[in-house]
Amino acid sequence: MTWIWYPADFEIWLGNRFNNRRTERGAMFPPFWKQDSHWVTVEFSREYDLEQPETIRIYAEGRYNFMFDGKLQFGEPKEWLVPAGRHKLNIKVHNQATPPALFIEGETIQSDDTWRVTHEDKIWIDENGVAHGSGIYLKPGYWHFDTPSNRPSLFQLAREEWQAVATHVLTPQPPDGHSEEKNTTLLVDFGKETMGYIVLNSIKGHGIVELYYGESKAEALDKEYCETLDKLEVEEGPRFVVPESKAFRFVQVVLPKGMAVDSISMEYEYLPQDPLRSGSFECSDEELNRIWQIGAYTMDLTTREFMMDGIKRDRWTWSGDAIQSYLMNYYLRFDSETVKRTIRQLRGKDPVTSHVNTILDYTFYWFKSVYDYYQYTGDRDFVVEMYPRMLTLMDYCLGRLFDGWAIGQPDDWVFIDWVDFPMHKRGIVCFEQILFSKSLETMQLCKDLVGPLSDLHLSNLHLSYPNVNYGAMAERLKKKIDETFWSSADLAYLHALEPTESPEKLILNTQVNKFASMFAILYGYADEKRQQEILHHVMQNPNVPAITTPYMRFYELAALCQLGMHDDVLKEIKTYWGGMLREGATTFWEKYNPEMHGDEHLTMYGRPYGKSLCHAWGASPVFLLGRYYLGIEPTSPGYASWQAKPHLSGLEWMRGTVPTPFGPIRIEVTPHKVCITTPKKIGKGTLFIADKKVKIEAGQTKTIDY
Amino acid sequence: MTWIWYPADFEIWLGNRFNNRRTERGAMFPPFWKQDSHWVTVEFSREYDLEQPETIRIYAEGRYNFMFDGKLQFGEPKEWLVPAGRHKLNIKVHNQATPPALFIEGETIQSDDTWRVTHEDKIWIDENGVAHGSGIYLKPGYWHFDTPSNRPSLFQLAREEWQAVATHVLTPQPPDGHSEEKNTTLLVDFGKETMGYIVLNSIKGHGIVELYYGESKAEALDKEYCETLDKLEVEEGPRFVVPESKAFRFVQVVLPKGMAVDSISMEYEYLPQDPLRSGSFECSDEELNRIWQIGAYTMDLTTREFMMDGIKRDRWTWSGDAIQSYLMNYYLRFDSETVKRTIRQLRGKDPVTSHVNTILDYTFYWFKSVYDYYQYTGDRDFVVEMYPRMLTLMDYCLGRLFDGWAIGQPDDWVFIDWVDFPMHKRGIVCFEQILFSKSLETMQLCKDLVGPLSDLHLSNLHLSYPNVNYGAMAERLKKKIDETFWSSADLAYLHALEPTESPEKLILNTQVNKFASMFAILYGYADEKRQQEILHHVMQNPNVPAITTPYMRFYELAALCQLGMHDDVLKEIKTYWGGMLREGATTFWEKYNPEMHGDEHLTMYGRPYGKSLCHAWGASPVFLLGRYYLGIEPTSPGYASWQAKPHLSGLEWMRGTVPTPFGPIRIEVTPHKVCITTPKKIGKGTLFIADKKVKIEAGQTKTIDY
Repeated sequence: MTWIWYPADFEIWLGNRFNNRRTERGAMFPPFWKQDSHWVTVEFSREYDLEQPETIRIYAEGRYNFMFDGKLQFGEPKEWLVPAGRHKLNIKVHNQATPPALFIEGETIQSDDTWRVTHEDKIWIDENGVAHGSGIYLKPGYWHFDTPSNRPSLFQLAREEWQAVATHVLTPQPPDGHSEEKNTTLLVDFGKETMGYIVLNSIKGHGIVELYYGESKAEALDKEYCETLDKLEVEEGPRFVVPESKAFRFVQVVLPKGMAVDSISMEYEYLPQDPLRSGSFECSDEELNRIWQIGAYTMDLTTREFMMDGIKRDRWTWSGDAIQSYLMNYYLRFDSETVKRTIRQLRGKDPVTSHVNTILDYTFYWFKSVYDYYQYTGDRDFVVEMYPRMLTLMDYCLGRLFDGWAIGQPDDWVFIDWVDFPMHKRGIVCFEQILFSKSLETMQLCKDLVGPLSDLHLSNLHLSYPNVNYGAMAERLKKKIDETFWSSADLAYLHALEPTESPEKLILNTQVNKFASMFAILYGYADEKRQQEILHHVMQNPNVPAITTPYMRFYELAALCQLGMHDDVLKEIKTYWGGMLREGATTFWEKYNPEMHGDEHLTMYGRPYGKSLCHAWGASPVFLLGRYYLGIEPTSPGYASWQAKPHLSGLEWMRGTVPTPFGPIRIEVTPHKVCITTPKKIGKGTLFIADKKVKIEAGQTKTIDY
Repeated sequence: MTWIWYPADFEIWLGNRFNNRRTERGAMFPPFWKQDSHWVTVEFSREYDLEQPETIRIYAEGRYNFMFDGKLQFGEPKEWLVPAGRHKLNIKVHNQATPPALFIEGETIQSDDTWRVTHEDKIWIDENGVAHGSGIYLKPGYWHFDTPSNRPSLFQLAREEWQAVATHVLTPQPPDGHSEEKNTTLLVDFGKETMGYIVLNSIKGHGIVELYYGESKAEALDKEYCETLDKLEVEEGPRFVVPESKAFRFVQVVLPKGMAVDSISMEYEYLPQDPLRSGSFECSDEELNRIWQIGAYTMDLTTREFMMDGIKRDRWTWSGDAIQSYLMNYYLRFDSETVKRTIRQLRGKDPVTSHVNTILDYTFYWFKSVYDYYQYTGDRDFVVEMYPRMLTLMDYCLGRLFDGWAIGQPDDWVFIDWVDFPMHKRGIVCFEQILFSKSLETMQLCKDLVGPLSDLHLSNLHLSYPNVNYGAMAERLKKKIDETFWSSADLAYLHALEPTESPEKLILNTQVNKFASMFAILYGYADEKRQQEILHHVMQNPNVPAITTPYMRFYELAALCQLGMHDDVLKEIKTYWGGMLREGATTFWEKYNPEMHGDEHLTMYGRPYGKSLCHAWGASPVFLLGRYYLGIEPTSPGYASWQAKPHLSGLEWMRGTVPTPFGPIRIEVTPHKVCITTPKKIGKGTLFIADKKVKIEAGQTKTIDY
């Protein structure tokens, strides 16, 4: 029994609220992508065969009507007695402001995912008054709104009162009693990066209070350049909570003359998680433990209504950031609901009029994120839900190809990465082709998984390319990529085919960078021989420009682990993420350059505090340690089969848990012994350690010497 | 200085409110078409070059930000001092519930249609923090919201208190003082069909009041079958106004025991019109005058937020009904704003996922309505606004052709008319091809008028068929129609090519009905010879089934007038519409069958009061008398040239006014004299009377003897 709505309507609506809440220096900063809206009128229906009569109670978000056994009833009945026998219920709900939603409370008649929902009946009436229709009936969306009063439109994250660890009075009231002459300025420190609502306690006097937020002390102290601030009218009273949440560790609070507060605290805002479902990591290296913990806290802060990029400045949903959050999440909270919400929100509604976040590569990550989700969770239902929206998004991509290649059209953003070396993003970029090829493979996998859509459903999607063989197209593309971009001289993928002044002529841009090559490894496009060539001539080649964002380091380090370079990667984790810790990080950053010093670290995008100090993509050790050191991953969807390939890489010991749909797998590794505890009902596992290959059954604790 | 918004956003939002307000026996009855929503975040911009500094005040419907000369400002500034010189203003407004709208009040800086608006910046940021963008910037939408407090989201029609003409006590309170034992039932008569809110005055006691509305007395008295009713909790007090407007002449009011009212009145709800702009008609035949007046009142009742079909049961916007309302309106109120609102609302937003109102023919009428509007008003701006939405709707049509013919796909409704004889609507229906051909011609006219769209705009429409030569396609189609459907044996268009059990084989359905033939005349597809053939072998052929709806009678009578049959048509108007008057009609009906008697007239769709007694398409004499008897019509767009071809058809005299963009043309006709008064600035007119052809200049009163 739960509130139900048209699939993705809640996410689309919540996404608008979420993405429009970003501010920059106190100004609303809405996203620059297409924003959709929920369907404003929706019909819910279900047939029941009752043994006993029962009374149902009807709750709706919106105006509604109620049709019982095909007959429309007066008004908006709150209760209805359903007699025994077979009966059909149809309820239409209309709501312009928030998604139409329904809650039915009865003994056996209850709103849940066995109901069906449609947004457009396409009914028409013939001259005899007979209705003809062709609606597409789908499973409804739902989440955890399981009581009538817990309405979807009232959704809020949870809050918890946190005290400051220190409050410094910067400009105290003068002792001579002329207190009304001067402002009081306080600097409040919450001890670590956090997000929530500043609270003023026991307020005396009233006036405009100014708050300058800082992820760093320097930012909070800099009224002119801090990224977020508030100026709020505050009345005398016991407690004032600022209306919008902000991210900060420090806050500079300026009270006007004549005003005072007893203390400043905050309401920490968070998405509750089930601790029993969580992953963990511990080892003999304290720095690594701290890196994992800071990574986990970074993930918890950025896992909210949706998986967001960064909590201070950014506060939007980005597909490239999100797919990494999803992967970290599979090793941390296994919070499938937030993954699904984010995937739905990023996709939005048809028509597709731009790439996801306007970015070509982000569209391709979006496709992959759906199948990644299926691989970790085994949740076919979600693929079934998303598949029609995958079809229309791919149709959009196919309509924008150039000679079969995926290119950035003039209104597309080709992102790849923020790079510190000259790199063009024009023309046919090899990296994008590899992502596009993976997207086509993903389409084929999902098509095979979902099976054919009904003709009616398919025709309602209005595809320009309804009969594409995605798998064959991927194969052709991979061959073309090899022929065009693989250089047997460089033993590397070359960067791009670039346009010249003549639109007909393209020239090869022979730059070698890591992007295409490392994705060729991650996506299994390079055979053993080529993998080694890429390792030596690209990944370990000092002449190839280094990757400097944690965003692409995620893939770089994963690729190196795929190539067996676990020891190097572990050192790199300690150097790079350990480096942030040594700079005092309490969450991981958007970007880290070890050669910078002090407040230089805070700068980005030409702004003194432009860098996000709590950025989801900074938390990749959470993924890397679970996937490549504890070494656990599903080898078929939803852990129907799985493997453990632990790598100590010089650690004395490590232990941890990796969540799965069946519960956590626990693993403990020492140099000569592995102990694995598996949940009941999980599929068959295989432990690979040294030269051993050991079968692991469900619901057992097994110790293996090696 | 006016509120501005993204074009058509207001109409789409108001349309949802409007169309979802229909009720059936007290239950919400939402439309069964796709309902769109406004864009939730919109950007308004304008550059100004000021001689003097000035302070502007900013009002928005929604949260907003303000960028001045490219710099985002803190918060939501209510006022801003703009210095002298060249400055750029950008304001983004976000609103999920109602359309984002803006009002700027300043000396010279004022929101109006010189601003530009975009819904999707498609901006992206390169590594240097530089924004790249490709928005489509359009003229904003606006109406008459010309002060800050007159906000678009607060829009309401006007109201006026009307008294009942009679109130009958059906079940009086018993005189023995046991008043609490019994209900009081009243029957209130407002003397004619009307629409608004019932008002209870001086209420004593409280309880649930029941209201049964009737367009007829029989309906109001029939609690079980009346089409609309209310059951409302009413408190003691001076006045209670029911919350939702209804259509009625009679209302049965049931007051519960212990409750009494002094009187029952109503708040008549209406769209204010400018009487100076209105058309008129008067002649020597009192019945004809009454027909014109009842028609005008029918139009006034159905011209509201939008031009609606009928005011009681229907209360939706239908394209086939609306195009007739528009044509009547050009001879009555010349209310261009309501025409534009209705055209915008019917079209909605992309993507096109079904025909307008799901009906193939209604899509084709929609195209024609845009050019009709241009022909009468000369308002090219509106064609420019609509043209992109015409392109996408035509693209949808082109994607659903069968061998070049417009057919009803399984999820389309092929309406044509409610007919009383057996008529299939399957396969390739000749009538639909004629409408489709006119749509293609209309596309070509509008394309030539608007000129090429920018590449960016065009690519944003995602057309499947971007390079169609509509004019040439229309020519080919007309040729095919002739070859396939014109029968030289029957001297008529045959009905259809019908599918058989073999999908490859079509057979000719040789039924002759009036639909295709009369549109061939109206659309100029039949030459002089064929016109006469159609007149004698179709229109006047007693073996061809009669048309029985006022909907298609509109076109039938217009076609007969085109064929010079004015005298017959005038008789027919007196018989058919006069017949309704003799049945006591105070507004014109959805359908009239002279052979029915008494309450039989009220039935339709198998329901005793299913017929709408105030139906816009019933008012066609308003169009016919203006266009074919006063005889005035534009011969080039916006009355840049025009003609008067008056036809007395046996009347002793007639006079009237026809509104034009320049003001009304007045014409008075007697058997040997015509007097025409023209407004200033109107284009050149030509009077055709008897064998005379007389030039009529602007701003003159001219009397012509003939």
